[in-house]
Amino acid sequence: MTVQDFFPIWDRLTPDQQTRLRASAVPRTVRRGAVLHSGDADCAGLLLVRAGQLRAYILSDQGREITIYRLFERDLCLFSASCILRSIQFEVTIQAEKDTDLWVIPAEVYQGVMEASAPLANYTNELMASRFSEVMWLMEQVMWKSLDRRLAAFLLEEAAIEGTDTLRTTHEAIANHLGSQREVITRMLRYFQSEGMVELSRGRVALLAKDRLRALAEGTA
Amino acid sequence: MTVQDFFPIWDRLTPDQQTRLRASAVPRTVRRGAVLHSGDADCAGLLLVRAGQLRAYILSDQGREITIYRLFERDLCLFSASCILRSIQFEVTIQAEKDTDLWVIPAEVYQGVMEASAPLANYTNELMASRFSEVMWLMEQVMWKSLDRRLAAFLLEEAAIEGTDTLRTTHEAIANHLGSQREVITRMLRYFQSEGMVELSRGRVALLAKDRLRALAEGTA
Repeated sequence: MTVQDFFPIWDRLTPDQQTRLRASAVPRTVRRGAVLHSGDADCAGLLLVRAGQLRAYILSDQGREITIYRLFERDLCLFSASCILRSIQFEVTIQAEKDTDLWVIPAEVYQGVMEASAPLANYTNELMASRFSEVMWLMEQVMWKSLDRRLAAFLLEEAAIEGTDTLRTTHEAIANHLGSQREVITRMLRYFQSEGMVELSRGRVALLAKDRLRALAEGTA
Repeated sequence: MTVQDFFPIWDRLTPDQQTRLRASAVPRTVRRGAVLHSGDADCAGLLLVRAGQLRAYILSDQGREITIYRLFERDLCLFSASCILRSIQFEVTIQAEKDTDLWVIPAEVYQGVMEASAPLANYTNELMASRFSEVMWLMEQVMWKSLDRRLAAFLLEEAAIEGTDTLRTTHEAIANHLGSQREVITRMLRYFQSEGMVELSRGRVALLAKDRLRALAEGTA
């Protein structure tokens, strides 16, 4: 995978712009758990995910977390370079969920090209609109959907991402994704277990009845 | 007010682009309560608010609403032209909160200029980032709701201490009482004001609806 693979509008950049993006991209490898960008502390640059998995989350004053979106192979992370856009005034933390290989394009290089290139500016617009849509979706979940539906949807999504019906995770980690508390998640998972939808063991949640979890997630249960 | 007043980057458009935006703008007047854009039903075009007030809100399946932001004189509404950005996949309703005078620029005209103009595309980016920030702020309120309660409690306490509902204080002073930042307090007070609970003027915060502030402070709102 090369830098240009991340930009469907690559052919509409000038040779000079292509060179600037390509030459400035720095390869970097981070371990699972590493924090790549934290709040407004830094402006790490644009992150291009070559392999691995990142998550973006926000943090409450009390230290509670909620995942706002995830980034996979071939995704491009804009908000680690939020200094590019003056109007972005929220703080997102980016953390590696798996060992991850990246390219980092310095914020000022990206900004320089974007200011001169309508195709890159419009592509950046699309990226932001796409993240915006994910956050609006999450907001709707948080506003209107009950936690049991959100938890069922989350378990199914994890199973799809990991390619297994036996998830290796903790109740605490699930709570941090959903903006909830460990005790609340434990209670809900025990309820799911009593209904025969999951089976719990130390550090594991096995999905036993995905059709019923899906009906619950979709509100057709 | 003219169309160009809405675009700080106007001078960086070509004469042809300026003419296209100006010539396509259609004046429109809507009455309080009118819905200008609803979900994905239509692509009304870009709305330029000359006078009046709009609100953008999302709607649950059960018909509950939440205001995600408001638009005032000189604001520009992007999401009524969400067809411009393929990646926007959420549904926002735009409604007039007061009688409102607008210009409407057809979506396809705006899109045509934006695709060719890096300045307009970058400006559109800033607009979206700014709305994105408002939504993230609201999400944090919805998720953790802590500072708003503390601020409401603080205002009531000050009113009791001073024996007046018109507090002479600065946002900075309030921030220093609450261990917060001035900008955060300013944003929160403006939100209180938009909800009709306080009225802000230079060096003053007038409490208009102490019962609602109390309900907020006590978590019973």
